[in-house]
Amino acid sequence: MTFGGRHPGGESPQSPWRDRLPASVILTEVGPRDGFQFESAIIPTDLKIEFIRMLADAGFSRIQAVAFVHPEKVPQMADAAEVARRLPRRDGLTWSALALNLRGVERALDAGMERIEASVSASDAHSLRNAGMDRRAALGQGVAMIRRAAAGGATVIGGIQCALGCVFEGEIPIERVAEMVAEMAGAGADAITLADTTGMGNPLSVSRLLERVLPVAGGLEVGMHFHDTRGLGLANLAIALGFGIRSFDASVGGLGGCPFVPGAAGNIPTEDTVHLLAAMGIETGIDLERLKGCARALSVYLGRTLPGRIYRLDSPGSES
Amino acid sequence: MTFGGRHPGGESPQSPWRDRLPASVILTEVGPRDGFQFESAIIPTDLKIEFIRMLADAGFSRIQAVAFVHPEKVPQMADAAEVARRLPRRDGLTWSALALNLRGVERALDAGMERIEASVSASDAHSLRNAGMDRRAALGQGVAMIRRAAAGGATVIGGIQCALGCVFEGEIPIERVAEMVAEMAGAGADAITLADTTGMGNPLSVSRLLERVLPVAGGLEVGMHFHDTRGLGLANLAIALGFGIRSFDASVGGLGGCPFVPGAAGNIPTEDTVHLLAAMGIETGIDLERLKGCARALSVYLGRTLPGRIYRLDSPGSES
Repeated sequence: MTFGGRHPGGESPQSPWRDRLPASVILTEVGPRDGFQFESAIIPTDLKIEFIRMLADAGFSRIQAVAFVHPEKVPQMADAAEVARRLPRRDGLTWSALALNLRGVERALDAGMERIEASVSASDAHSLRNAGMDRRAALGQGVAMIRRAAAGGATVIGGIQCALGCVFEGEIPIERVAEMVAEMAGAGADAITLADTTGMGNPLSVSRLLERVLPVAGGLEVGMHFHDTRGLGLANLAIALGFGIRSFDASVGGLGGCPFVPGAAGNIPTEDTVHLLAAMGIETGIDLERLKGCARALSVYLGRTLPGRIYRLDSPGSES
Repeated sequence: MTFGGRHPGGESPQSPWRDRLPASVILTEVGPRDGFQFESAIIPTDLKIEFIRMLADAGFSRIQAVAFVHPEKVPQMADAAEVARRLPRRDGLTWSALALNLRGVERALDAGMERIEASVSASDAHSLRNAGMDRRAALGQGVAMIRRAAAGGATVIGGIQCALGCVFEGEIPIERVAEMVAEMAGAGADAITLADTTGMGNPLSVSRLLERVLPVAGGLEVGMHFHDTRGLGLANLAIALGFGIRSFDASVGGLGGCPFVPGAAGNIPTEDTVHLLAAMGIETGIDLERLKGCARALSVYLGRTLPGRIYRLDSPGSES
């Protein structure tokens, strides 16, 4: 063996990945939207409000509370207007809503939502299934949605679904996503969210996408939305942090995923993400203990163990 | 919004993290050792051999089959000598054994093991619990174990437990780990494995540890062993890949973890790791479909869903 030599794998042991880590991160809790909408049993509105209040009390600055989508296609969101009306006010907390078409944007504005995510898919196959139109038509509609929401006074997020691949279509060209970002920025989006809707992303594809997209996004905040279907959500987040990305969606307990598909998984669990960031010295302003309490309450209510790890760890003596 | 500008989070969008990604990775399957030893019910020897044969057929080049440890303390490994005798031979496959003291090394050599991991803890508190001596005494013993195993003709791994923190002791100084690596290298270790025994590591601590340890390790292969207790195993692996690390332990299905502690988790699931690496274009030589079959068979035998994600995803239409 040799000393003082170099590791065969690299030129230098210094890690450039950590040069651009952010000092703080804004987590958007999307459990009430992305999580609740995937539950097979509809959660009563009163109970939704209770869970939402617990989340608000955990110190989030952003929560995505509802989706204004077709009530027959997504009956779990049929009470969106009522939920929106009953959202508790908190200093420093901004509520947001998801919309998939112009009608959804109108309803979100009518409900007084200050922050609206106008979301379209980068995948033709996914767009045809979810929105009934190909991605070009969907992007045209997305641009109209962004303009309408901005004209209505809302802060607008341009959301791009399947930005890291599509389970139906496979790989999504990075150039396509870059073009969508440019169009959305041109239409007046205040922020962009790149969503790994079907959990296809990996650290390398995240890296390549951000290398290409960040220059196009210019000064816009670029956030990421990871699903943990293949267990790579937090690995992808770790790589994105190295690009200075400081806005991520996450779902309490890791809620979400299709209840009819074994192994399907939701968003990255918010409490696991808060733990990861705190361990790295990155501020979120979120009270981890309160958040763990929300996850435990939801686990009890839903009658199953949620994907999140941290909420299940009670004591320090947790391994051998 | 602005175009062509720079993302506020970073100087340049180019990712230096991926400059040193390895082209191939050697995964050591540790399920038969780290996994089986944590099962509350003892797996019959014949069945162990069956599972081990399935793993061998999945194309691994390294499998850690047994631990030579006290049969009363770890009854699950009481049949280690018999398992070692009955290991199936495969071209290109090296079997290894774990030892925690000199007696274990002697038994491993007697059993004809070609590769022996001499493992000691970097944590006093953990070492006192697991080995009955403080870490300095344990390191002295570790050096003797490495010398004995090398003298016996085995390839020797110096294993460092709790290299990324200890659930009992908290943070472990990086300098301490660097000194242990230097001592083990000096004693004749052929490789080093840095183990996150209690799942305390995070991407930043992994980065800092490797920055300090790789120069000390010189030309030795440095491998990593992550537990997924807090869901960070694959995130940690992704960061380690960026240092050119190309040796990792993993456990089929994510076996392992203390059965008496809710939420405790085992190693990173091998099949999830193979999927991650394959998605990044990194070769492992492992047949993912066969490996998923092993995980499914173990899940059926053990009567529970294992932590691994990939083995549960059957079809491409796996989300909404």
